Amino acid sequence: MDKLTPRQSFTTVTDLVLPSETNPLNNLFGGELLARMDRAASIAARRHCRRIVVTASVNHVAFNRSVPLGSVVTIEAQVSRAFKSSMEVYMDVWIEDRESGDRAKANEAIYSFVAVDDTGRPVTIPPIHPETEVEKERYDAALRRKQLSLVLAGKMKAKDATELAALFE
Amino acid sequence: MDKLTPRQSFTTVTDLVLPSETNPLNNLFGGELLARMDRAASIAARRHCRRIVVTASVNHVAFNRSVPLGSVVTIEAQVSRAFKSSMEVYMDVWIEDRESGDRAKANEAIYSFVAVDDTGRPVTIPPIHPETEVEKERYDAALRRKQLSLVLAGKMKAKDATELAALFE
Amino acid sequence: MDKLTPRQSFTTVTDLVLPSETNPLNNLFGGELLARMDRAASIAARRHCRRIVVTASVNHVAFNRSVPLGSVVTIEAQVSRAFKSSMEVYMDVWIEDRESGDRAKANEAIYSFVAVDDTGRPVTIPPIHPETEVEKERYDAALRRKQLSLVLAGKMKAKDATELAALFE
Amino acid sequence: MDKLTPRQSFTTVTDLVLPSETNPLNNLFGGELLARMDRAASIAARRHCRRIVVTASVNHVAFNRSVPLGSVVTIEAQVSRAFKSSMEVYMDVWIEDRESGDRAKANEAIYSFVAVDDTGRPVTIPPIHPETEVEKERYDAALRRKQLSLVLAGKMKAKDATELAALFE
Amino acid sequence: MDKLTPRQSFTTVTDLVLPSETNPLNNLFGGELLARMDRAASIAARRHCRRIVVTASVNHVAFNRSVPLGSVVTIEAQVSRAFKSSMEVYMDVWIEDRESGDRAKANEAIYSFVAVDDTGRPVTIPPIHPETEVEKERYDAALRRKQLSLVLAGKMKAKDATELAALFE
Amino acid sequence: MDKLTPRQSFTTVTDLVLPSETNPLNNLFGGELLARMDRAASIAARRHCRRIVVTASVNHVAFNRSVPLGSVVTIEAQVSRAFKSSMEVYMDVWIEDRESGDRAKANEAIYSFVAVDDTGRPVTIPPIHPETEVEKERYDAALRRKQLSLVLAGKMKAKDATELAALFE
Repeated sequence: MDKLTPRQSFTTVTDLVLPSETNPLNNLFGGELLARMDRAASIAARRHCRRIVVTASVNHVAFNRSVPLGSVVTIEAQVSRAFKSSMEVYMDVWIEDRESGDRAKANEAIYSFVAVDDTGRPVTIPPIHPETEVEKERYDAALRRKQLSLVLAGKMKAKDATELAALFE
Repeated sequence: MDKLTPRQSFTTVTDLVLPSETNPLNNLFGGELLARMDRAASIAARRHCRRIVVTASVNHVAFNRSVPLGSVVTIEAQVSRAFKSSMEVYMDVWIEDRESGDRAKANEAIYSFVAVDDTGRPVTIPPIHPETEVEKERYDAALRRKQLSLVLAGKMKAKDATELAALFE
Repeated sequence: MDKLTPRQSFTTVTDLVLPSETNPLNNLFGGELLARMDRAASIAARRHCRRIVVTASVNHVAFNRSVPLGSVVTIEAQVSRAFKSSMEVYMDVWIEDRESGDRAKANEAIYSFVAVDDTGRPVTIPPIHPETEVEKERYDAALRRKQLSLVLAGKMKAKDATELAALFE
Repeated sequence: MDKLTPRQSFTTVTDLVLPSETNPLNNLFGGELLARMDRAASIAARRHCRRIVVTASVNHVAFNRSVPLGSVVTIEAQVSRAFKSSMEVYMDVWIEDRESGDRAKANEAIYSFVAVDDTGRPVTIPPIHPETEVEKERYDAALRRKQLSLVLAGKMKAKDATELAALFE
Repeated sequence: MDKLTPRQSFTTVTDLVLPSETNPLNNLFGGELLARMDRAASIAARRHCRRIVVTASVNHVAFNRSVPLGSVVTIEAQVSRAFKSSMEVYMDVWIEDRESGDRAKANEAIYSFVAVDDTGRPVTIPPIHPETEVEKERYDAALRRKQLSLVLAGKMKAKDATELAALFE
Repeated sequence: MDKLTPRQSFTTVTDLVLPSETNPLNNLFGGELLARMDRAASIAARRHCRRIVVTASVNHVAFNRSVPLGSVVTIEAQVSRAFKSSMEVYMDVWIEDRESGDRAKANEAIYSFVAVDDTGRPVTIPPIHPETEVEKERYDAALRRKQLSLVLAGKMKAKDATELAALFE
């Protein structure tokens, strides 16, 4: 089998913002977008490892731009790094102006998934090989984020998180 | 008006896990739980500031324990710290065994919200005064998380994030 | 095991009223509230008996106050009386003003549930011991409501419904 | 205009029971049926008065027979009596066996609605004229149920509920 | 068993158009109506053959009239013709004016279903015997539509579609 | 402005089949797929004309292959031809095997949309210029389908549908 790349897991979900999905300011509800991103990211994770996957964590989501009723929203998800049985999925969320067709980034988000067998036990997954500059950058940062996650959860000491500590020196 | 405390924003949402909300392993979908937590957290944030609130970010969610079909899930949300116009909301999620009645923690989650006026512009909100030991701990950690968030977004230099940097010394 | 009290079954469900759940007057749909109350009440019933429970009847619901779009609605459910294999659950529904934080009662509702085994056959459940004045009042009234229900269903003669008949003397 | 009859408000809603609408015993959730009946009954009420209608109360619902996954469920709703600005709607719910085509009654239910103008204020509605024996019976019983409802709500003294008291003599 | 007629499969589904089901012009979403028609038509098909049925094709739907928010929509479905293991279902969709009670046709639609056993394999179904003029017309036209469908799918040569070809002579 | 091509309207919607969307054979409900295709196609139509669009008709959908629970389904939609104010959108629907990653075509579908202004009145839209062989084929066939649609609706005489009649000679 060939080396797997982030591109092979690339997943696009395009959808409308309907009235039932908006908050009192007539923008897409944060919770609705979180749920849609979970579905998109889980498909990307599954495309990388071809196993059942379950959401392990949400590492970061920043809602930088509100998404108005009637928008077309596109979620692009791609595995950024594979570890032993877990994967980090990086997402870019775009909104598209109906009249001009221009698209603007609404937010980025990072989720992690674990590959499991039918009984829910973690299974080993293949490594991933980043190709483009952006993919390589995200691949490197994924390790720092994993360390940060372990430190925040008290499962790793800050001083052992060498990749991460480098940021603060 | 009296000083506002985390307790005043305390919000409980108890609900069942129905067949339509499960993944292929018959556990609650990650995305569904993310959406429910967003609703619970937004009520807590609103109870603190009594303004319209919108989700600003998801700082961290770790799904430590799967939530099986038929479970009773309880989300407890409370504002942990108020900044100028934003608030951090800390959530504990519990599942309850039907037969024994015992409850176990499924996960913790941290979301941030911004208080806005009718036009969506941020407004100033009152400070919060933690009372219990746990509340004080979460209040202090909230500042580190805010710095971390700014560093990761490239809006603050790591060396200026003094609270955070202390972790790595 | 200790005596079971209504308090032990106490269940709180807090949620928002979203655009998708409103009628043409922009208030929460009656049917949506009926469904939410069924979920809250079934959790309270299950907390009392720790068995599978199914809705047996809706004894009374009066929608006294409409619940506007954007409200925070809180349903508080508690078992008011346990019979052989059925339970009456009493609910108070509150709406909360966003600006003042004041809460007002929107309505009360009474549902009944039956505890069943995996095949759907009724099973015996433990008795309940009311503690507060309100709990004792609702406990006593539950018997009258049960008789009324049997009379209306033609399963008991009005003259045998001694508790109930007393009301009309 | 001709005299209005219950028949003119007759409303049929036929639908399937899907997996997303079932409880742990694989039967239709009580709450889901309550919501569907509210929609059917509101259409019947609206057909009588041709105004906006809002649910005023649920007077009685008994779930006599469980409705299994995959069933065809038919709700038949008809206004049983019109008062000044409110109406009682009587519903019969049927389930249909797929193989034999036989239908069996699953339950009966009684809801009340109020006719309102655009601002939510009650408006006067036309009287209704029952034609069949069953319609006349339900028309008469509706008054007793209204009195019962007022007595239970503490808005009428039991001794003034003459129609109702007759039941207990 | 008696001869089966279209009338025996007649199915009525009446429902409201709620805010969550509308497009930016405040009319019922096309996709929502397509889904509702699928449910109504599958019940009609099942009533004819008393087997599990699955949607085989949508032959034609024209949305002639938009269905505004708050409308009462009635779908009337009836099997128009039975083939070996498939059936054509013809639907008329009506909207009802709240104030006058008048109803107008919003559209007609034609779906096909296949009867299958528990493993999904097609099974033979009984023939149908049209009675009224309209039923006979739709019965005859169903054969032309079936030929057209086969021609368009490349499974029949246009010149063998004798019923259909007659239209163009 | 450059000439518009089908490619510019290309829209991809990838999603999972969840338990709440399945029929009794554990396959995706026909109605659910019809609704998803309507959303995907309306985005493609909107991308061509940059106006509000409403579903005008469903010309043909054949469900050739059932879509099992847990599948990843991808809908690819593209405008095949633009008329004065209406567009035909052609869709290919794919299902993807989780283990092998192979994808197979589940069905093709053809919907039509009309571009409208804020008041719902049709507006003129730009022409489209097919580039690939498949795009040219679908462009030509679109005219025959439009004639067929007019003939079936009684709005064009079969003998005037010259493109179409050619098929039967």
